[in-house]
This record gives sequence, structure tokens and C-alpha cells, in this order.
Amino acid sequence: MSYNTFGHMFRVTTWGESHGPAIGCVIDGCPPRIPLDAGDIQPWLDRRRPGQSKFTTQRQEADQVEILSGVFEGQTTGTPISLLIRNTDQRSRDYGDIATRYRPGHADVAYDTKYGIRDYRGGGRSSARETAMRVAAGAVARKVLGAGVRIRGAMVQVGPHAINRARLEWDLVDTNPLFCPDAQALPVWEEYLADIRKKGSSIGAVVEVMAEGVPAGLGAPIYGKLDSDLAMALMSINAVKGVEIGEGFAAASLTGEENADPMRMEDGQLRFASNHAGGVLGGISTGQPLVARFAVKPTSSILTPVPSVTREGENVDVMTKGRHDPCVGIRAVPVGEAMMACVLADHLLRHRGQVGS
Amino acid sequence: MSYNTFGHMFRVTTWGESHGPAIGCVIDGCPPRIPLDAGDIQPWLDRRRPGQSKFTTQRQEADQVEILSGVFEGQTTGTPISLLIRNTDQRSRDYGDIATRYRPGHADVAYDTKYGIRDYRGGGRSSARETAMRVAAGAVARKVLGAGVRIRGAMVQVGPHAINRARLEWDLVDTNPLFCPDAQALPVWEEYLADIRKKGSSIGAVVEVMAEGVPAGLGAPIYGKLDSDLAMALMSINAVKGVEIGEGFAAASLTGEENADPMRMEDGQLRFASNHAGGVLGGISTGQPLVARFAVKPTSSILTPVPSVTREGENVDVMTKGRHDPCVGIRAVPVGEAMMACVLADHLLRHRGQVGS
Amino acid sequence: MSYNTFGHMFRVTTWGESHGPAIGCVIDGCPPRIPLDAGDIQPWLDRRRPGQSKFTTQRQEADQVEILSGVFEGQTTGTPISLLIRNTDQRSRDYGDIATRYRPGHADVAYDTKYGIRDYRGGGRSSARETAMRVAAGAVARKVLGAGVRIRGAMVQVGPHAINRARLEWDLVDTNPLFCPDAQALPVWEEYLADIRKKGSSIGAVVEVMAEGVPAGLGAPIYGKLDSDLAMALMSINAVKGVEIGEGFAAASLTGEENADPMRMEDGQLRFASNHAGGVLGGISTGQPLVARFAVKPTSSILTPVPSVTREGENVDVMTKGRHDPCVGIRAVPVGEAMMACVLADHLLRHRGQVGS
Amino acid sequence: MSYNTFGHMFRVTTWGESHGPAIGCVIDGCPPRIPLDAGDIQPWLDRRRPGQSKFTTQRQEADQVEILSGVFEGQTTGTPISLLIRNTDQRSRDYGDIATRYRPGHADVAYDTKYGIRDYRGGGRSSARETAMRVAAGAVARKVLGAGVRIRGAMVQVGPHAINRARLEWDLVDTNPLFCPDAQALPVWEEYLADIRKKGSSIGAVVEVMAEGVPAGLGAPIYGKLDSDLAMALMSINAVKGVEIGEGFAAASLTGEENADPMRMEDGQLRFASNHAGGVLGGISTGQPLVARFAVKPTSSILTPVPSVTREGENVDVMTKGRHDPCVGIRAVPVGEAMMACVLADHLLRHRGQVGS
Repeated sequence: MSYNTFGHMFRVTTWGESHGPAIGCVIDGCPPRIPLDAGDIQPWLDRRRPGQSKFTTQRQEADQVEILSGVFEGQTTGTPISLLIRNTDQRSRDYGDIATRYRPGHADVAYDTKYGIRDYRGGGRSSARETAMRVAAGAVARKVLGAGVRIRGAMVQVGPHAINRARLEWDLVDTNPLFCPDAQALPVWEEYLADIRKKGSSIGAVVEVMAEGVPAGLGAPIYGKLDSDLAMALMSINAVKGVEIGEGFAAASLTGEENADPMRMEDGQLRFASNHAGGVLGGISTGQPLVARFAVKPTSSILTPVPSVTREGENVDVMTKGRHDPCVGIRAVPVGEAMMACVLADHLLRHRGQVGS
Repeated sequence: MSYNTFGHMFRVTTWGESHGPAIGCVIDGCPPRIPLDAGDIQPWLDRRRPGQSKFTTQRQEADQVEILSGVFEGQTTGTPISLLIRNTDQRSRDYGDIATRYRPGHADVAYDTKYGIRDYRGGGRSSARETAMRVAAGAVARKVLGAGVRIRGAMVQVGPHAINRARLEWDLVDTNPLFCPDAQALPVWEEYLADIRKKGSSIGAVVEVMAEGVPAGLGAPIYGKLDSDLAMALMSINAVKGVEIGEGFAAASLTGEENADPMRMEDGQLRFASNHAGGVLGGISTGQPLVARFAVKPTSSILTPVPSVTREGENVDVMTKGRHDPCVGIRAVPVGEAMMACVLADHLLRHRGQVGS
Repeated sequence: MSYNTFGHMFRVTTWGESHGPAIGCVIDGCPPRIPLDAGDIQPWLDRRRPGQSKFTTQRQEADQVEILSGVFEGQTTGTPISLLIRNTDQRSRDYGDIATRYRPGHADVAYDTKYGIRDYRGGGRSSARETAMRVAAGAVARKVLGAGVRIRGAMVQVGPHAINRARLEWDLVDTNPLFCPDAQALPVWEEYLADIRKKGSSIGAVVEVMAEGVPAGLGAPIYGKLDSDLAMALMSINAVKGVEIGEGFAAASLTGEENADPMRMEDGQLRFASNHAGGVLGGISTGQPLVARFAVKPTSSILTPVPSVTREGENVDVMTKGRHDPCVGIRAVPVGEAMMACVLADHLLRHRGQVGS
Repeated sequence: MSYNTFGHMFRVTTWGESHGPAIGCVIDGCPPRIPLDAGDIQPWLDRRRPGQSKFTTQRQEADQVEILSGVFEGQTTGTPISLLIRNTDQRSRDYGDIATRYRPGHADVAYDTKYGIRDYRGGGRSSARETAMRVAAGAVARKVLGAGVRIRGAMVQVGPHAINRARLEWDLVDTNPLFCPDAQALPVWEEYLADIRKKGSSIGAVVEVMAEGVPAGLGAPIYGKLDSDLAMALMSINAVKGVEIGEGFAAASLTGEENADPMRMEDGQLRFASNHAGGVLGGISTGQPLVARFAVKPTSSILTPVPSVTREGENVDVMTKGRHDPCVGIRAVPVGEAMMACVLADHLLRHRGQVGS
């Protein structure tokens, strides 16, 4: 069973391979009468687009999105929104090697084992190119959420170098191609990544995404929890190996006293003195910022040969040729934001359906 | 939108509140002609049952499971399997306090905000009691998977005390009530938890679950990845704040060279030299052990008063009375195993449906 | 793939076999704070209960419903509502015959072919006993819809004897055990059915269900149409072989002029001069009465021997013994109403989720 | 909640408006390694294409399908198949009238009531143009089913003129543009329809679809019945007002003796002496031909003015201008076949998933 859809009320289906004619998505369930045109989506795609710094893959794609349905006279109609991006940078090249030699750490061997066939060109369906459509869908989700919900992401760790949270400045994020929120960490990362790149190596990262202004009450027991849906959504991003909410794994070392989020009424409003919970209790949003982090592994496409096998079962050593992506965590920042936006939009509609406001 | 079902082909729906007459689940989609009786389920429930050591809540429940449908003459029939456990330890007590005073860190305030009503007795729907039905469903899932798939879990960290992985012995797990796999860590944990308990405090933990014998090819692109479904399933367990697969968050600090899992053919079989990936590539199982870990926060029910509010918006300090659970991570071990079993059973059927074997 | 759930936002899962210990259902997604107790459900179950006239099966079941979850202090909580009915009339008898001899027209042979096993006692899962849970769920759905939506059903044809629509009186329906709305048809049906019963024969019927007060705007393009979901729901009732909306099959013989429903504004309200459409256009409710009819086949349990085969592949003649149900269409009336109620409740929540009111 | 997807394992999502840039669909869950190219789909689209006789709308569309994903080197890969058809015949015209005046019997008023907006050009999403994608998906479904399953459709009634079933010749269907299987009915229909067309009127029809070679065992209890899924699928086709299986509504007039399908073993195979059931018992296929019929209403686009209202609530009389479709039942024949193919492909995979063969 293939499953290329997520969401219940705000449902996103993506399709397309890295080197096919196009990639696209269908967004079903979007509320009507939301102003929407390609200009609402394009900036987010531009933000994710590769080739913007030397630290990401040099693939060049215009990533021009077309809206093929579901919008009429500048507004959503409530019917499915079909988005399409033509693939333009499909270099003609000899795929002979990649067709038969499994790249270690890639989905190559897994797809072949499962399906007995795979579109090996550029990774086919398993390519990170698919994430462009997540970003496009996320742009629509942001419109559903409205201006009151603000979703931001940042890289908070590159290899061994984590930011100092005391220095975290969200406004810094969009001023540098590494989505770095710590002015002092930035030069360290740049130097570190330049070295990684020079060596033909790669490195992992941690990305944080946060939503402010989320209404309290989104999410639901028991298998529709806001945080479990978010975990699914973030873990489905290519190369992600871990997801955490609020304190996350650090909570394992905390006592109940340390992890408590005291509550008080202030001016008739419920206030929390801290946010160890990351904005969710019992799977339901509390009105505090929703905070999630995810770990991105180093890409396995490195210039060091790694033992592997061929489709025919022969031992070979495989080394990446051509484009190289020293830190895939970078481009995961806009993707993580988009997934959070989609999950929130879905839960907003689900909540409204059951509870009515 | 409430959502108390998970799985696509092997679907589990749970229902019930902590202090209602019963809890239960419906398992739909189970293949026919699988030998099954209550004796296949009861041992797993007994393993999760509270009150078995001083380190878990002293609630006493027989947790006797009844099979109400879907089994005939000792075999599954392919129709829905209804399981039911009567709640027997519903102490008559005054719930006045808990009814109106929100316990910090609990779902109390979130449920009330969302629904405007909650069954406050013992936590109602948000109680960990619900996890008994996950364990019951997991027992059925194990039968679907067959003897070739072995799923085990262990606690690998309690508060600041992690096991030494070089000493990890799976066989040790079932010999102690802490599901500890490290003989030297065990006395440390016992002493540490005794102290936590004496103080009326609580502490977090990390649980690891592993499945061996998983056929290669389970899982699917893109939103039906084995690891993203597993992330959803594990994050949905009460008090879980983080999930990771294979290296997980540690992968953020690794280079591509360090994180590589070299492949070789051995005796006509594909072998991996390491398992940083945790048994899954591109969302599809590789045949290696499937390895996941999750972080469990410390329970917020502690004997230290914490600032909180009442339903009516008054400031109060709330302190747990009565039963106390110093480390909810302990009982999460069988629950984590069960969730992994359910996800694998679901994907086994999903794969067979699409690919045919 | 077994599938014992229907609905998206208001989801009903039923389970249980005719002669197992109990049958039940789980209703997930019900809005919170709806007053509900067993007394809201029982009258509808009593209405469906067999053995109330000589024209239905003489099985005697108290059909006492228990609410096991999802209701607290007389109100729904938004969590899953578990309903259970104990089977009390499980006559001890020798099932030897039915176990091995397929009853023609029954699901026996189909279940065995599919699953290789079946609970043959009383038809097991395929028994009409399952419809009790539909009626129970329908009672909850009516509460969700509120008093403004009125759903009624009637038998409009028994064998060759259709009612005269000019004489249709809805108030008559609940005054007779045949749910007959035509005072002149009633004695004809009674005589006809008495004859059918005496002969050990059976006869088909047509049931009409109608909902008044349905808000305009429920339903959705394209595979979530109100009428296609209703068709699914009604066709899933045991023995149903046809479903139609509004004019239904009669529309095939009409011209566009004859089938038109002229519209006019009256007192600021949209009014239709007729209702050939049956209350739905483009899959969306118009505010007119929603009208559906379904055909129920004659039960195949008759006293005349019919050629059949055994499980082992031997030719036999099979004749029904014991209880006999001359017209299963009768009891389908409350079931049809319940299914319409569930579909409408689901669409009410779906609409509110997407569109917001 | 909008819902533009159907199927569980073989899932079809369609999108697009009549006069937008394109229409399309995404088929998810298709098994891998099935030979597929546009040439497998185009002939079915050509069969549905309007403008092929004077009895259907004169809209001219090339309906050239493009495969954008999911196929590699002539075979399906198991990943989503995206199909796209550009809209070429979008006449530039003044839509002023249709934008504000609701066409009686159309979805115009319903969409506006629900969404507060609609793409009124050519009916937008509610246009029968959407059915082209059903036919395209059906072509893929046929490949999944394989050559052993043969699905055919025919028109069996036009207005008051039904075929004589004794004369039914399936081979005749593809020799005439009315999909008529009765050589004597054909000239009657032609004359009748010519008259309807001349008058600017329209007329309803009944279509029959049949699948032979369906394996026994497809379908499932209780809300995944083969016939209830088929009812949903057929009722979702534009203008369909009724669906029946086997005897359908005629079963209401039959006795149990008349409706019985006697069984016998012949040469080790189960044989039925008749097929009143239409190939399905208890929601599960029996191996007999699967037979369904559906009623198509007359299109409401007629040249006679019908009282209606405007968007602003003024009374008007509305008359169709431009293209005119005297009998939309004609083009429903290939659509009905396609829907049956999709439902069967879905159930084939669902069955294999649960039962394993």
C-alpha cells in the first residue's frame, strides 16, 4: 500500500519524481473564499530552492508553481487545489551507474526490494525534490491559519555545533542562508561547513520549528494528537531520524519539579510560567508556542567510497559523483515549517468540525 | 474531530475512560484463521499491569481481557475483534478537588478548553489506563506477524542514568521490574528511583524498542513511511515527548562517513556492516533490526505543590494526593513494544495488498 | 481488508456476531456536551426489535443498550462512545447443519470462500443482528442533528403492493407494526403477508426514508457527495439491492421539463416548486426534504428446499428450519432511518469543519 | 469537508474544473511492474469523448492524456500515477448570465450556498468533464485487474424505451454511438432521441455495467461491502439518481422462491443456476458476473425556460443556451464501467492484503 496523502480535513497528496516531467500536489478540503494566487506560494518555494548557497546542492530549478484548479478569481473555491511545478533541470546524463549500483544510505535498495522496480534518475520518488510540494502546500496552509498564527523555523545545530539558546534571535534567521538564529554560531557553522564541503563529506543537523498564536484546543485524543500527527509529519521528511516536542529527549533527565509548567491567571488569561511541554498537553494545544525539533542525518552522498552492492548482487564501492549536498538539514528548515503549517491547518478544521468554533 | 483509531489495514480503535465501567478496543482487518484466545493476550497485559513494583502506581487492576467477537473456535474469522477489560479498581472517593483544580502538566486544562467538559475521574480518557488496550492489540499484532518477527523493549535511561550499551543484555529485561537490560545499571536505578519515590518526586526515562526479523520492503513512500507511522504511534503514548529511529538525534553530530551503513553480499544475502539507519531507508524496512527510542517525561503528579488554576479561573497550588507514579517510563516499555507490533502488522498487510507477497 | 467503520467526522464502528456474547459499536467524533443517556437510544432499539409482530423473526432479545464510555454526567465528552448489547437469546441448539450446508442466498458460501472460516451460528457477522448497532448509532446521530432535523421512514411497497402516494400519511407509520403509511394498503399487506408466512415463503419490499429540516450546503464534491454516501450507507444494510434518491429510477423515463424543480424566492427564502431531485443537487443538500428509497430482497430463508452445496462440495437441498422472517423489509425501516441520520450527522460536522458554520 | 478521493488501497483523487487550464487525477497504491503507457488509457477516453454523435454535447476536446509520474520505462513503479488532460475547448464567451442566474437542476445554487463562491464557467467542478479522469483511472484499474476480468457497459433504457433483455447482445454495444445492445431498440432510440433533440428537450436513461471473471471473495463486511462501495461509486457519477445490484428494485416484488439462486457443484466447481443476486452475497463476490444498473436523470439544460432565481435573489426564467446534451446517460456508459473497474481493483488489493491471495 502506497500512501502519498496526509491530513484528514486539509489533505495533501503529492506526486512526481525528481527527473520526470513535473512534480505536483493536490490540496483537498481547503476552506472556500481564501485569497490565493501563485504569488502567495512562490516566495516559500524560493526560500527552499536549492543552489542558493554553496552549502546546498547546486541543482538549479526555477520551481515556478502553477495553480491548475480550485482557485477562481483569486479565491479558493473549496474544491481541490492542484499545484504543479515543471522539472526543468533534468540534466541529460548517463544514469548507468546509479541504475544498478545502490547508493548506501539511500532508498535505492529499499525501493528495489519492495517494488522490484524504481525510477533511479535523481532518486526518483525518494528525492528531496518532493519536499517542494510540501512547501507549496504549507503556503496554502498558512493562508488557512491566517495571520494570527506565525510559524518559524531555524537550524539550531550543525554537526557538533549547537546554538547558544540564550543568543537565539528569530529575526536573524532570514538574513543568512543557513537559517541560523545565533550570530555567534553563524561564522562557526560557515567555517565548519566549508570544511565539510571541501572534504566531500556531509554532516547532520537539528532544526527547530515553532508556531505562535496557535489557538488552544487543537488536537484530539488519542490517535489524533497534535504532537503525534506532527511527529508523523516531520519524520516523513527525507533524512529525518528523530522528532521531539518541547523538552523532548531532555525531559528524560528532568524531575517532575523541573519539568513542571506552573499556571496562573493574569488579566483573566491563563498564563504558563514556562513551556517545557512545547505547547501541547494530552495531545491538545494549550495556546503556548508549539515547539518541535527534528534531527536530520548527514546525506549519504559523500566523496568517500562506501562498500555497497549492485542490483545483481555484486559487491562494489560507491562514491557520489556530481552534485553534492554537505548539509541537507539546511533546506529542511522551510520544509519543517510547511509540515507544521499543514498539520495545524488540518487540526484547525478538524476541531471546528467536531466542536464548532 | 476526535480520532481514536490508528492503522490502515490492521486498524485499532480504543475507547474507555479510567474510571468508567470498562475500557476496550476493536481490531478490524485482522487476517482470518489465526489461532487466538485470551491466553495469547493476557500475559502481555500482565506485563504492563501496574502495582507490580513499588516504582509504579499502586492501582490494582486484574486487567482480565474478554474477547467478545471476531474469534470462532479458537481462530480469528477476519471480522472485527472486540476486546474488553472491566475496570475493577474504581475507588469511591471524593473527586471534588480534581474536578475543579487543573493538575499542571496534565491534560485537564486542555480537555476542558477543547470540549468544555471532561471526565475528571482518574484522568478520564487521558489516563494511561488506555494503554492497556494498546498492549492487547499488540498481542494480536504479534500473532499476525508470526514467530519470525521478535519485538522487544527495554528502558535504556532513567533520569540522568543511561545504560552502557556495551553491557546491554536483552535477556536481562524480563528478570527485573524496571525492564533494565544492564546488570550494572539496575542497582543504580533502583536506588535512584527509591530516592525519587521517597521524595514524592518523579523522573523521566528513555525506552528502546526493537524488532528483529522484519521482512525487507515494509513501509512506503511518502506519507506512509514505516518510520513516520512508527513516530506517530510512539508519540501518541502518554507522556512521550520524543521519538527517534536508529541513530536518531545523535545523527545530527555525525558525518556521512560515520553514519554510513556499508553493504555487502554474504552467502547470497545482503548484509549491512552497521545499523545507523535503524532498519529503515526511504521509509522502507531493509531487513535489519528496526530500532526506535522514545523519551518519556516525568509525570507531573508530584508531592510538591505547583501553581495552577481552577476551572473557574482562580489561582491555586496543586499537589498530587493518593497514588503516585515515580517513573511512568517503566510501564511504557510494553506499550512501546505493542505499538511497534501494531505498526508492523499494518504495514505487512498494506505491503501484501499492493505488492502481493 | 475488512472494514467495519463508516463516516469521516462522525465515525461508527460496529462489531459482534449474532450468537457471540455481545454486539457493540464505537462512535468516534461526536461533539461534546450533547445530553445523552441510554434512554435516548433505547426507544429506537425497541422500535427495531424483532418479535413484535408475527411478520418478523420470533427471536426475542431485550436489546438493552449499555453506554460504556464517552458520556459523563449525562453529556457526551467528545471522546469515543462505546455502546454494548448483550446477546441473550442464544438458543443452545445443534448447528451441525448450518455449519456445513450453505444456505442459498446467504453470505455463508461467500464468507467461507473469502476467509476459509466463518462463525456460522445464526449467520455470525452477516446476521441482521448487526443492524441493532446502526440503530443505536443513529439515535446518537439524531441528537447531533438536533430537533430541527426530522428523519422518518416507512415501508412503501410489499411485494407487488405499493402504497398510493396520494394517501401517504406519515403519522400512520408508528401506529402499525408494518410501518405502513397508507391506511388502505395496510390491510392488503397484512393479508398478503399472512399468506406469505403461512406458505413459509418470503417477500421483498421497498422502504422510503426522508429527512426534513436538513440545512442547505451539506455534502461535497465529488466523492463525498451526500447522495453517494447515502447510497453506500443504505446499500450496506442487509438484503438491500437498490437505492434511489428523489425520482430515482423513474427519472430515466422523464424529460428535462418533467424532471425540473422550478425555483422561486418567497419571502426572501428560496423555494422549490417540486422535489424531483430528492433534496440534493450536485451532491449537496438544497434545504428541501432529503428523500431516499431502497429495495429489500426477500429473505432466502424459506421452507421450500433449494439446491445448494456443502462446505465439502456435495450437492444438498437446503430448507430453513426454526425462525422465519417473511419480510425483512419491515425491520429495515428503523435501520434505514438510522443510516440516514448517521450520514447527515457526519456531513454536518464535515461541512462545519471546512466552511465553518 | 471536501472529498475528492475514493478507494482505500487503489485510491483515485481527481481535480480540475471544466474551464480551468487542465483536469487531472492521481492514482495512488497501484501495484508495481504493470505495463502502462498513455496508449492504454487513450482508447477509453476516446470512447467517452463528447461530440461523437449528434446525441451528445458538441464540446470538442482532444482529451489527450499525459502521464506525469509513477511510470518508468513503460511500467508502473508503485508510486503515485499523475494523469493530466489539458482543457483545449474553453470557448471565450460571456459568462455573465450563468454567473448570476442559477440553472435549475444544476449544482449552481448548491455550490454557492455551501461555499459562497463557485467557478461558474461551464459548471466548474460540477461539470461532467470531471468524469474523463474517472475513465482514465478506470483504464489503469483494468490493467490491475488483468485480462481475466472483463467489464462491459450498455445503455438498457432511454426514456420509456427499455431493451428487450432476450435480445441483449453485448457485441452490439461498440458498434453504435448509443451503446445500445439491442438491435431492435437502436432505431427506436435514434428516432426518439432525434425528436428530443429537435425539441430542445432531454431524457433520462438506465445504464447497466457488468464484470465477468471477478474472483470470488472480493468485498468485506460490513461497511466495506463490494456492492455498497459500488453504490457509492456509481451514485457519485453526475446525474445518477439510483443504483441497483442484480435484481435490484425488482427484488421487492419477488418471493424468496423466485429470487433464489440455486447452487450445485459441477466438475468440482460451484455453479449457480441463476444470478438474481448480481454476483454478490453478504457484500462479497461469489464468482458470478457482477451486475449493476444505474439511473441517469435527464439533463436540466433544456430550451424551455424554467423559473429560477439569481444569486442576488431575484426571480428569473432560465433557458439553456449554446451546447445541449439530449441524453447524458449515453456518456455515462464508459464512466460506469470505469467506476466498476476502480472499485474492483481496490477490493482486489484489499482482499489480498487481509487474506493474502
